[in-house]
Amino acid sequence: MNQLNTQIEAGVISPEQLLKHWQGHRSLTRRVIEAFPEKEFFEHSIGGMRPFSKLVSEMLAIAVPGLKEIVTGKTSPFNEDLDFDGKKENVLKAWDDSTEQINSYWKQLSAERFQEQIKLFGQYEGTVVSNLFYFIDNEIHHRGQGYVYLRSLGIQPPFFWER
Amino acid sequence: MNQLNTQIEAGVISPEQLLKHWQGHRSLTRRVIEAFPEKEFFEHSIGGMRPFSKLVSEMLAIAVPGLKEIVTGKTSPFNEDLDFDGKKENVLKAWDDSTEQINSYWKQLSAERFQEQIKLFGQYEGTVVSNLFYFIDNEIHHRGQGYVYLRSLGIQPPFFWER
Repeated sequence: MNQLNTQIEAGVISPEQLLKHWQGHRSLTRRVIEAFPEKEFFEHSIGGMRPFSKLVSEMLAIAVPGLKEIVTGKTSPFNEDLDFDGKKENVLKAWDDSTEQINSYWKQLSAERFQEQIKLFGQYEGTVVSNLFYFIDNEIHHRGQGYVYLRSLGIQPPFFWER
Repeated sequence: MNQLNTQIEAGVISPEQLLKHWQGHRSLTRRVIEAFPEKEFFEHSIGGMRPFSKLVSEMLAIAVPGLKEIVTGKTSPFNEDLDFDGKKENVLKAWDDSTEQINSYWKQLSAERFQEQIKLFGQYEGTVVSNLFYFIDNEIHHRGQGYVYLRSLGIQPPFFWER
């Protein structure tokens, strides 16, 4: 049994399942974006934290650019300074565009690459799969913060378990 | 190639890696618990949400009881009403005890069981691995909310990327 088979033998989740897991989370995040009133999406903050629009910019700056770099091997500097012209509509458009691009790049990612060591955005070292989990976990983390922002505005967020 | 091999062939993360991933998150959550002043841990709230102590109770009520049920097949009703006698020290003790128990039960979970369909706590249907991801994701979600609580108290939380 070669090294690839040894690695593969121990796997607990398939690439297709991981994509579905990620897109399920992204679908929930999209509904959290929708739940914000436009003004509060760009301005509301607690304890000096970034407004939810900035947290979403970070998610968008990580997801497609990160996956694209994993697939193509071409490094770009990390840039989360996205311009939405103060409109949630533009954010949702960027979100949906990312959804399509993620599906498209994912198809180009072969199963044996998930354990490959990489250095993402020129600085984040780890395996491909550890970087992908970082993308997802970071989104869950910041979306959880968006839930508190919504609650502090008296708005009920979507249920966490609905994907 | 039989069905088991087909499933296994596509795996992107090993059981050992998933345990390390989970315990890394749990280690960060422990430091978030530590960062709270005792009174605020049990009382501070935003927008009518539960204080962080209650969110941590939920995490504890899910982790070991959930994993134990997966491993042993014995169902218990979900119970998140844990008593810490108003002391963070007791919470941290319960947390560390859970850390050991998770490591111990994990050793009894064979790789081929991760894709098995189960119904956890008598109600949550899905594969073993989808339930385990739910445990982890739910912890990240609520811990992110704890970050906002800390920030609203003027306290700097631990860095998200330090596990």
